[in-house]
This record gives sequence, C-alpha cells and structure tokens, in this order.
Amino acid sequence: MQIAFVGLGKMGGNMVRRLRLADHDVVAYDRDVDVARALGEETGARAVASLEELVAALDTPRHVWVMVPHGEPTASTVEALGELLESGDAIVDGGNSRWTDDGPRAAALAPKGIHYLDVGTSGGVWGLDVGYCMMVGGPQEAVARLSPVLDSLAPRTAEESRHVIGEFGWEHVGPSGSGHFVKMVHNGIEYGVMQAFAEGYTLLNKNDPDLDLAKVAHLWEQGSVVRSWLNSLAARAFEAEGTSLEALQPWVDDSGEGRWTIEAAIDHDVPVPAITASLFARFASRGEDDYASRVLAALRNQFGGHAVKRVG
Amino acid sequence: MQIAFVGLGKMGGNMVRRLRLADHDVVAYDRDVDVARALGEETGARAVASLEELVAALDTPRHVWVMVPHGEPTASTVEALGELLESGDAIVDGGNSRWTDDGPRAAALAPKGIHYLDVGTSGGVWGLDVGYCMMVGGPQEAVARLSPVLDSLAPRTAEESRHVIGEFGWEHVGPSGSGHFVKMVHNGIEYGVMQAFAEGYTLLNKNDPDLDLAKVAHLWEQGSVVRSWLNSLAARAFEAEGTSLEALQPWVDDSGEGRWTIEAAIDHDVPVPAITASLFARFASRGEDDYASRVLAALRNQFGGHAVKRVG
Amino acid sequence: MQIAFVGLGKMGGNMVRRLRLADHDVVAYDRDVDVARALGEETGARAVASLEELVAALDTPRHVWVMVPHGEPTASTVEALGELLESGDAIVDGGNSRWTDDGPRAAALAPKGIHYLDVGTSGGVWGLDVGYCMMVGGPQEAVARLSPVLDSLAPRTAEESRHVIGEFGWEHVGPSGSGHFVKMVHNGIEYGVMQAFAEGYTLLNKNDPDLDLAKVAHLWEQGSVVRSWLNSLAARAFEAEGTSLEALQPWVDDSGEGRWTIEAAIDHDVPVPAITASLFARFASRGEDDYASRVLAALRNQFGGHAVKRVG
Amino acid sequence: MQIAFVGLGKMGGNMVRRLRLADHDVVAYDRDVDVARALGEETGARAVASLEELVAALDTPRHVWVMVPHGEPTASTVEALGELLESGDAIVDGGNSRWTDDGPRAAALAPKGIHYLDVGTSGGVWGLDVGYCMMVGGPQEAVARLSPVLDSLAPRTAEESRHVIGEFGWEHVGPSGSGHFVKMVHNGIEYGVMQAFAEGYTLLNKNDPDLDLAKVAHLWEQGSVVRSWLNSLAARAFEAEGTSLEALQPWVDDSGEGRWTIEAAIDHDVPVPAITASLFARFASRGEDDYASRVLAALRNQFGGHAVKRVG
Repeated sequence: MQIAFVGLGKMGGNMVRRLRLADHDVVAYDRDVDVARALGEETGARAVASLEELVAALDTPRHVWVMVPHGEPTASTVEALGELLESGDAIVDGGNSRWTDDGPRAAALAPKGIHYLDVGTSGGVWGLDVGYCMMVGGPQEAVARLSPVLDSLAPRTAEESRHVIGEFGWEHVGPSGSGHFVKMVHNGIEYGVMQAFAEGYTLLNKNDPDLDLAKVAHLWEQGSVVRSWLNSLAARAFEAEGTSLEALQPWVDDSGEGRWTIEAAIDHDVPVPAITASLFARFASRGEDDYASRVLAALRNQFGGHAVKRVG
Repeated sequence: MQIAFVGLGKMGGNMVRRLRLADHDVVAYDRDVDVARALGEETGARAVASLEELVAALDTPRHVWVMVPHGEPTASTVEALGELLESGDAIVDGGNSRWTDDGPRAAALAPKGIHYLDVGTSGGVWGLDVGYCMMVGGPQEAVARLSPVLDSLAPRTAEESRHVIGEFGWEHVGPSGSGHFVKMVHNGIEYGVMQAFAEGYTLLNKNDPDLDLAKVAHLWEQGSVVRSWLNSLAARAFEAEGTSLEALQPWVDDSGEGRWTIEAAIDHDVPVPAITASLFARFASRGEDDYASRVLAALRNQFGGHAVKRVG
Repeated sequence: MQIAFVGLGKMGGNMVRRLRLADHDVVAYDRDVDVARALGEETGARAVASLEELVAALDTPRHVWVMVPHGEPTASTVEALGELLESGDAIVDGGNSRWTDDGPRAAALAPKGIHYLDVGTSGGVWGLDVGYCMMVGGPQEAVARLSPVLDSLAPRTAEESRHVIGEFGWEHVGPSGSGHFVKMVHNGIEYGVMQAFAEGYTLLNKNDPDLDLAKVAHLWEQGSVVRSWLNSLAARAFEAEGTSLEALQPWVDDSGEGRWTIEAAIDHDVPVPAITASLFARFASRGEDDYASRVLAALRNQFGGHAVKRVG
Repeated sequence: MQIAFVGLGKMGGNMVRRLRLADHDVVAYDRDVDVARALGEETGARAVASLEELVAALDTPRHVWVMVPHGEPTASTVEALGELLESGDAIVDGGNSRWTDDGPRAAALAPKGIHYLDVGTSGGVWGLDVGYCMMVGGPQEAVARLSPVLDSLAPRTAEESRHVIGEFGWEHVGPSGSGHFVKMVHNGIEYGVMQAFAEGYTLLNKNDPDLDLAKVAHLWEQGSVVRSWLNSLAARAFEAEGTSLEALQPWVDDSGEGRWTIEAAIDHDVPVPAITASLFARFASRGEDDYASRVLAALRNQFGGHAVKRVG
C-alpha cells in the first residue's frame, strides 16, 4: 500500500527500508532534505522536500507515519499535518510520545475527520532485520486500513505465539493512547531488566575481575532462566568492550518512558520498586545524587565528628 | 561415560533421563527407593538402594552427581559420600548450595584425594528438552573428566555464541565455589527480571483490566527489546490462568539465592537496589510487612489523628 | 488582627482556638453551621453561616484563611471567595494543596487585585499547644500583613534557632507555590522517616517479640541520634497499643504529598529511593502488590514447577 | 564506683570525662600512652600504660569498659583482658561490635567466671554534655553492678519518659548480644532517617538553589512533624557550610551497622527497603555503581544505537 514517512532517523529510515523491501509505495520526508534524497536513491522511496509536497504526493485517503522525537517535534509535526490533511486521512505517531498526549491529539484531529493512531514501536536498530514489535492504539477502522503496512513492519510471529496473536508481531491494544501506554510500560520493564543484569554483572566483576563476562553472558543464553535478548546484547557488549568496560564512562541517559511509567504507577497505586530503582540508578550515574551525598557527609560530621572529604 | 546420581527429584530425575538418552551409564539413587526403581525401569539406569551400593556399583575413578536440596541434605550426602569414596573419585554438587559451603567441602575432601565440583544448574523443568545451562567451579582435572556428562546435559550452543563458549552450554568459571557463585548471581538477576515484568503487567492490568495480557506477552516476544524466556513463560501463564490470575494466591516463596546475592553484594559494596526490591516484594507477599504497616498506621494516628482500622 | 477562617476541622478548628487565645478577632465558617456555632461559643469567634456573611463581617482589607481538604474543596472555596472579595483582600490556602495549583490560583485572583498566599502547615493535632510550623509562599506585602496571625499560630522559636529565623516558627520561603512546595517536601521526608522507624521496630519485634518497644522508643528519646518527635510518638503508640500492635490492621493511607514529592523529584532528576520505598510500602499495605505477587507465583510455577497456592 | 576504660578516643575519652564529673574512680588506658596521660591530668583519672597495669590498679571485683573500634581491636582487647581478669570481674564492650560477636565472647569468658556486657552506645561527640543513650545486653547481676556507672553516663530521662524507663537513659534490653542488636537497629534507622532528609533537601535545592536551607532546617525544628535531632544537625551543617555544601565532596562512608541491619532483616524475612536504599546510596556516593552504569550504557548502545560517552 501507499504510505508516507516523516522522520528518517535511525528508526524511521530503517522502517522505510523494510517497507520498500516489501514493495510498499513510500513517500519519504525528513527535515534534512539530503537524508530523504539519499534514502530515496537507496530504496526507491519517493523523497519529498516539504510536508506540503508530501501531502500532494499521496492518493486519498492518505496515511502518514510520523517518526520524530517525542515532545515538541512530534507535536508540531502532527499539528502541521492536521492543517494539511483532509477528512478520511490518517496520521500515525510511531514515536515514543507520552500516552497522555494522544487523547488530546486525536480529539484535535477528530473534527476534521482525520484519524490518529498511536503506535508504540520496539526493536531499536535491529528492527530492520528482525521486524518491529508494534503496540497499536486508536480506532479500529484506521487500524484495519494500516494493517498491510503493520504486517510488513512487524516480525513474522513465532510458531508458539501464532495461536494467540496471529501471523504478524503487532497488536491493536485499545483506543487512543493505549499503544503508547503499553509501549511505555514495555520500556519501564526494560529499565528494570537492564538494571537487574547490570547489578548482577557488577557483582560478578567485583567478586572476580578476571571472570570473562562475555563467556558468562553467552553461557546464560544457552537454556538458562535469564536468557533474553537484552542478555544477548550484554554478550555482544562484553565481547566488544572487554569485561572491564573501561573505555565507557559510567553515564546513562534516559528518554522519558521510565519516568512516565513510574508516574502512571503512582496514579494507579501500583508499587514499582524495581523500575524506580532503575531510573534512580540512571539519575545517580549522572551525579544527581551528589548533593544528597554531601548532606549525608555533613550530617555524619555533625553528630559523630566523622571526617568529611573537602574539595580541593 | 559412567556416572551416579543421588537425588532423583524434578531436576535430578530429568538429568538422568537426558543422560540416558545420550547413552551414558547411569547409577541412580534416591532416598525413596521406589523413585529410583521406577526411574531405572523407565530409563535403563541402574537403580541402587543405598549409597554403599551406589559406590560399589561404580568403576574407579568414580563420579557421583549430588542433586538434593541445599543445606542439610546436601551437607550430609556429601559427607557420607566422602566416607565411602576413595582417592581419585569425584563428587559433583549440582544443586543450589550456597557458594560459601563449597570451599570448606572441597577442603574436607582434599586430604582423601576426592575431587569436588560445584555446578550451578539452570533450566528448571524445561531442562530435559532444552538442556541445562551449567556453571562449573572446581579443579580443572576433574572438570575435564566430567566433560562428557556436561556436554550431554547442556544444550548445544546456539550459532552466535559458539565462537565464545564452544559447542556446549556449560563453562568452567573458576575454582571451588565459583560455579555456585555465578549461579547465585544468575538467580539474583532472575529475581530482578521477574519483578520488573510483574510490576509492568500489574500496571497494565490496573490501567485496563480488559487488556488481554496473554496477547501482550506473546506480542512482546516478537522482536521487542524485552523478549526473553521469562516473558515467554508469562505468556504461557496468562494463557493458562487468564489475565486476572484470580485463582492464584498472592504468595511468593524464595529459595535462598536472592538473599545470598544481596549479602554478597553488601560484602562487595555493590548497590543492588532492583534485586533487593525483588526479594522484599516476596517478603511482603507473605505478610512480612504487616507489622511495619501497623507501626505506620499507629504513627499517623498519633500525629494527625488519622483514623486507624482496628481488627475485628 | 482580624481574620476569617473557612474550614473548622481538626486543623482549622484548633488554629481558631489558638488565635482566640492570642485575642485575635476571628470570623469562623464551616459548611456544617453547627460546628461553627459551637466553636464560636467555645472561643468567642464570630460564627457565620455562609461565605457571603463571612465577607460582609470583615473590615477591608479582608483576610480569609482557607483550611479545607485539598483538591476540589479548596478549589471551589477559593473560587467562590474570589467572586466575593475585592481588590486588596487576601486569601490564604493553609491546607495541603498541590503546589502546582498555587500559580494558577494566584494568577486567577491577580486581575481582581486579590492577594493569594500558600501556607504549608505542619503540626497535626498537637499544633494547638505547640504551635504550627508554617512555610509561607506568596507576595511579600501580603505576607507582611498576615504576620501578626502567623506569629500567633507559630511556636515561639527555640533559643538555638532564633538567630536564623527570628522569634516565631514560620518563614516566607518564596513566591506563590513555594510554601506548599516546601511543605510537600517536608511530608515526603516524613514518609521516609516514618518508614525507617517502622522497618527498625519491625526487625526488633521479629528478633524478640518480648522486647518492650515502648521502653526502646522512650529510651531512644534520651540522647540517641534518632531522637525525634516521630519517635516520641512511636513511644506513645507502643504504650497505648502494646508492642504487638495486634489491634491495628496493617493498612496505611496516604494523602498526596508523598506522591507529589516523588513526581517533583523525577521532574528534577533527583533520586529519592527512601521516600519512594515509603510510598510503595503504603501501597503494598493496601494489597496493591497482590497482582504482581500473583504474576511472580505464576512465573515460578512455569519455570520451576514450584507449587502455587490456589485460592479457595 | 570504680571502673577502668580501655580506649580513650572520641567516645571513650568523653565518657571518662563524664564519669569523672560524677566523681567515679576511673582507671584509663589507651594504646597511645600520651593520650591516657593527658586525659589523666585533665580529669584526675588514673592513667596506666598497659592492660596488666590496669588490672593491677583495680579492686576486685573489677569492671573494665572497652571502647575501641569493632572487629579485631575489640576482639583482641577482650581476649587479652580475658587472660588477665578473674572470676567475678566484668568486661563491658561499649563499642559498635556486631551483635553476633557477643554470644561467642560471653561463652568464651564464662568458664573463667568473667561477666560480659554488650552496651550499644549512641550520642556521638555530643554525649559528654547530653549523656549517652545506652542499650545494655547481658546477665542481670552484672548489669546491676554496673548501674552506678550507667546512671552517670546516661542522660537524665525527660519527664515524659520517666514512667516507662525510670530516671536514667539506659535500659537492660536482654541477654548477651541484645544491647548491640538494638543499637545496630538504631543505627539502621539512623541511616534511613538521614537519607530521607538528604533526599528532601536535595529536592529543595534543585527546585530553588537560592532557598536558604539553614532557614528551612531551623524552621522545621519549630513544631513540625519532622523535628528531630538529626534535622537540628542539618540546620547546623547548612549554617556552617552554606546551602550549596560546595566545599564537601559527595563521599559518604559507612561503618557496618547498616549492613548488619539489612542482613539481620533478611534473616528474619523483614523488608527494609528504606534502610537498604540508604546503604546503597552510600555505596553509590563512592562510585560503586560505576560499573553497573557502564553496563547500562553499553546495553543502550547495543539495542538503540544510543551514544555512549567514551573515556578520554
């Protein structure tokens, strides 16, 4: 089928590649026109230089997949498309938007008759080969129309899951916002799983710095209870960086979904201690615990006369 | 090769089955002689009715794999075998013993010339088909002698890991105690991974009790970042029990490795907040937080006149 | 000076009593007119039966202290007063409103020339005797005008703090919202302190149920590092309830400030693991961890064949 | 009464001073003989230059209070005294020994008829003026004999606690080990309380770096729910260091009791999430979370192509 992509970065670019491999008709736009042009030449997607051009290049009803950073970039893109599109067209937000943005966005587009889908997309840079795991929220009619594209982007479902979710690795999980909600929780879980492995590998390394953690990680992929894609990536990372990881700074970013998961959990009275510990560990990796540590050092000095380390 | 098994429960029994499928010569003992006899009839293992008989049935140098619950049962079994075996024989503790038990055990057997291996074994009830992921600690010579059995018990290594750990899914990870240490940390990680999934699925369920979590779990196995064996088990569990899980009591046991992981982490000054949160969540599932909650309720009543709920 | 109070519950009623003891001229309103009448008779405050009557009873510029539950009750009361008051009048929100409500409220009142102060108030049911610790946010001019009332409500500052905060236990901590922000953080800390004591007393009780915790709590008030008002309340609680606390249900409520503290911390990238653990412990006390425990039990059953407890 | 002190550091020295102010007959020993001599000249205590001299200087039955660092120093001191003392004498370990050391120590001394008391002592450098809060474990007879010294070291009990614990701020809390156990838990609570304040003050500082935290801390001492000795020390610290605390390194030590508290809690199945978070925050302040952060950064790079920061 025909679909337009807005945003051709690590995720969007590979999704276009995957769709072109399945012979879909793709119109591709990026704010960097050179990126669009190059991708067009590589894949046969039609590169366009503006949203106006993009809209003009599509047959009606149009389908536009937005794959830009969440927050302002997604907001302004969806708003601009809302101005340009017509009744019966559909916008897909495939990025990591906060799920609370989706309801208002859908409501703002509804009077014009424009459909809005929120698609939580997991798979990272590996999605091109493996396929993208997609959690889709929004009206059934628009989901049905997009299904050929979703089928092609998704992995083919593994045998043991086919009786439950069918042939392709995507699901319609509910109304507007639910796709991003399920994806947000997915990422919250991801934080916790990563943290558990990070803690365990740290303990192994502290106990015996000579233990080859690439071997341990590869070993655990062979039938152990913790075998998982994230652990297989740990195996690759230890191979690439060595067990010491000494070339890496201990600095970990976070991109929002962990925070939102915790806030949603608090709203629902759900204890999420492991996920929260994971987010706070990232904050601490960036020195955000330094002030608290100074308070503790100052208090210990006050009551016990314990030495503090002074700067400089 | 020839090997004896002591303890024919869920783990030991299946390991004998797997070894017999590979045509090893297995002598099998269980304190319940009927269990040994039945397994012998099923598999062709030679059932024996006492440790003395077991030792007599083996050619020298003998190899005895102990697969009984950790703590007293393992301690008394290893001690009894130590009395019966001779120089050049080898004992394998394949259970979940605390790694700090291994050094003393090895040292107690050394004067008699008996080798001791500690093998952390992961795979659960699935190991019969999949193979057992094994982390082996102890002297190189004994490890080499046991390798035919380890090869057969282990899964065949997946293609992408073969260049690192060779053809079979087991590794010699260091001297006495290191096998159980690495397995202990593996289980600590397992606690954290399970807890992360439990938190996330709970939030999904609270947000929308009608969301079919079997579908979500199966979906996440298709290319998502959190795909993992534990999540595939979550998919099976939700299929079997329904999303509500209403037939299950919220009561979670723990078997030691999580506690030991945290204690080892504290000994090494390693922060393990996610793993610790996981253990404490299990304690709380068993009502062990009730007294603390009473203290909090009493305090709130004292300072704010907030109502407490009284029993009865 | 003259001041009106709206809301005569546990907090508001005692604040009127304290102001009357200091001979301020108090106009008192509660939606339950009997409460207002009784308090008027007890204290000499002028009871009124409506906000209109209350406004009519005051000299200009008027000062109205709102002491009703946060959320809708405070919102509707402030809005109604905003309709009735005039330029130069002042509204004080002395309740536990979320600090993010204050900016919009102040902005809504500003065009009419009505001042708005947010006063975080700590002290609970003990404030009548001890005085109320108050954190005041808003414009300096209005703070100055209210200062006679604040002086009377506050405790007289202890000798060792007088050189820093002056004679009375209240402070102007910044612009609109800052009073409630500082109070919110105060309560977040309170959660953490209470949880630390609850954990410790639980461990003492588990280790030796016969240890008299009223004695321990009273003992710790004598020169120990943890001596604190909350621990002195623990001493009272154990005296009243006995060490077993057996008459209390393990059910702990929360009233919002803990949640907001964590959300503000996440917004500022500040790790707050102890405060978060405290909130989650309260959730768990109310069974909100039950579903997660069921997930864990189901997973353990899947991989290890561990028994689950079934309902009924 | 007559008592000997071994160890004249920050704690022991001040305790001798306090006992001399109450006219007790004190024999004082420190491995640094100059320290003992100077303290003797200052206080009138009899300085001795060896444990042998100390034992010779005492009337029978002798009482020796050991106040040296826990671990090896205490172990070797108690052992040496055990060689020198006689039946009917008593040794007091007033330091922060692990409670599990007390039983074996008492048992080792029992055959010689030497009494052993474990006294958990709180109060820090302030104890000289305020008195020491003491939790005493051991046989009743020896406790009774030491009571004049305990009375003098302890604070005079505040009025509101006198009906529960009597005139002086110490208590006999049980048999050998219980004094150190209760003190250990006290210190675990202390960790949690300090962490709660550190988290809260950090959030205040991040939200508004210009907010004067010395003012806030002093304010909270005036009738607020969190008023406490530790917060009064925070007030002093902010006064001394300024709100920024910029001269302090974010490095926090720990001395054992926090770890032991968590281990004891795990042994008793008691969830202690706030106390554990506090210990882990101290580990993290010392960079012990760096390796885990590297693992996380490497994993994010693997699955998402997220940039890592490389060293140098």
